[in-house]
Amino acid sequence: MKQTPKLDEFNLIEHYFKAKSYRGDVIVGVGDDGAVTEVPADHQLVTVTDTMVEGVHFDKTTPPRAIGHKLVAVNLSDLAAMGAAPSWGSLALTLPTIDEDWLHDFSGGLKEISNYYECDLIGGDTTRGPLTLTYTAQGVVPNGTAIRRDQAKAGDWLYVSGSLGDAGLALRLLQGELSATHGHLQSLVNRLHYPTPRVALGQLLRGVANSCIDVSDGLLADLNHLLPKKGQMGVQLELDKLPLSLALTETLDLDEAFALALTAGDDYELLFTVPEQNRGRLETITSHLKDKPVCIGRIVKDEQRQVKMTYQGEHWQMPDIKLGYNHFGAP
Amino acid sequence: MKQTPKLDEFNLIEHYFKAKSYRGDVIVGVGDDGAVTEVPADHQLVTVTDTMVEGVHFDKTTPPRAIGHKLVAVNLSDLAAMGAAPSWGSLALTLPTIDEDWLHDFSGGLKEISNYYECDLIGGDTTRGPLTLTYTAQGVVPNGTAIRRDQAKAGDWLYVSGSLGDAGLALRLLQGELSATHGHLQSLVNRLHYPTPRVALGQLLRGVANSCIDVSDGLLADLNHLLPKKGQMGVQLELDKLPLSLALTETLDLDEAFALALTAGDDYELLFTVPEQNRGRLETITSHLKDKPVCIGRIVKDEQRQVKMTYQGEHWQMPDIKLGYNHFGAP
Repeated sequence: MKQTPKLDEFNLIEHYFKAKSYRGDVIVGVGDDGAVTEVPADHQLVTVTDTMVEGVHFDKTTPPRAIGHKLVAVNLSDLAAMGAAPSWGSLALTLPTIDEDWLHDFSGGLKEISNYYECDLIGGDTTRGPLTLTYTAQGVVPNGTAIRRDQAKAGDWLYVSGSLGDAGLALRLLQGELSATHGHLQSLVNRLHYPTPRVALGQLLRGVANSCIDVSDGLLADLNHLLPKKGQMGVQLELDKLPLSLALTETLDLDEAFALALTAGDDYELLFTVPEQNRGRLETITSHLKDKPVCIGRIVKDEQRQVKMTYQGEHWQMPDIKLGYNHFGAP
Repeated sequence: MKQTPKLDEFNLIEHYFKAKSYRGDVIVGVGDDGAVTEVPADHQLVTVTDTMVEGVHFDKTTPPRAIGHKLVAVNLSDLAAMGAAPSWGSLALTLPTIDEDWLHDFSGGLKEISNYYECDLIGGDTTRGPLTLTYTAQGVVPNGTAIRRDQAKAGDWLYVSGSLGDAGLALRLLQGELSATHGHLQSLVNRLHYPTPRVALGQLLRGVANSCIDVSDGLLADLNHLLPKKGQMGVQLELDKLPLSLALTETLDLDEAFALALTAGDDYELLFTVPEQNRGRLETITSHLKDKPVCIGRIVKDEQRQVKMTYQGEHWQMPDIKLGYNHFGAP
């Protein structure tokens, strides 16, 4: 237990993370006791936070650039799920040592995605300790338009923004559970290491979706969060419609591919529900997107909150353990 | 490296940290992808973040209740130094195991101070890993009134809000560097473990102080932050006026007491500068306070940015190493 264990002999945040800002709403940025920012009139503030720990969320083989990217991406994905536009971020960096190469790459990845989405780093804290990274992102929504996660209504159509299971497959390839001599390896690993937060789509869904969540824990786990706790609702899921990448279907049997797409996390696609009367509007606002959201099922009345899955009209049953499925969920 | 390593089988944040809110500005709190809050009209947002790591900022002997208190206190102290009123907090909790006794006490300490200052916990993240706690606090200031740290002007009077060196002395007593059979031990340890953020004073200083910082790293270190980087200013410090507790002066020689008060951190008093024309106003706004800020010196023109210290009108020189002074600063 030491006193004042900040790495303040070397202002890491200022040196590695300060970037030119194009935002006009940052009054005081990195370097003071706190940051001062302006929320636009008639807007509400949305705040999210996510932590990544070495040995848990990544390991020593993970490129530091990917860690920097992903730390911001997972937070922006949470903002997207709320329908919020990203504004600002704060970084709490706990480092065992000052490794300049690591910091260069990590900060490079962090700054690149931050700049792309115009999410300014406004402050942070640097301490010594086991490698642990916490990022807090702030965004804004017009008053009253934030999209909740547990507001699905019976009759809503269920959509997902892109293919699922790819990050999970990449993890298994990297861990040697499947053969690593694999033509799709790099694109899969990119999905795991450099996820794309659905920032634009999230904002388009304001006023259109009844509920929205990002798939970080796995489709089935996160689907459960969409259903109101006290509502007697279940889900009908049509696996025929589930978007699966070529990489996934060329690597696994269909049953295995479904199982992975349903239970593996880390894809950061948006999962949302849209009432019948908004389906046309959804079609319109997403018509310009390269990857359009796909309707994969429907929310139905069901006292037992079941997820009923069908494939080609027949009931589909999750196969028994293969590829270590029991490791897919939360440990 | 596991996937989805959240402790989501047991919603820790919701179970241990959710508290009744009296704020009307939290639209969506704990439990969604993000929190939604409202910044009042004509106010700016102030954001601060601080991390505490086991083995660095506290150890296994530190009461969990104190850790919970201090995690919030050090953040509210940063808000106070900006002149901001606390509003909301987010907690990123990295835990090696789920220790229910620890969580009960830690959350108790965190909730007590949060409730006292009406700073609502609005969200967070829970992950497995080495015990690391990051708190991000948000507060508000009327537009344009946030107090910066590096805006001291030559001629400003220098004030501190309370006695310094107590937390540093407590740490040395706990670590056995000084005898632990000490009449003031409990009150000193309370200053180390349960610091009081100067929340009300910070807000009173808006429009009165030119610059303000909280003393977390030690008076001399933090004083350096008050001086504009490009300004040619120094400080005249009158040690006669330095507020020292009875506990400190009864334990140490005066030279040692000064050295500790000047270099030890963790006291979380506010250090601020006030121009001549605002001294009367400062007197008025602080007249009701039990502990009034004390004027300990003045900002002067000095190309070499020196801190000149006097005691009874004579130049005072920091004594050579006693009590392990070289450990006081940042490691």
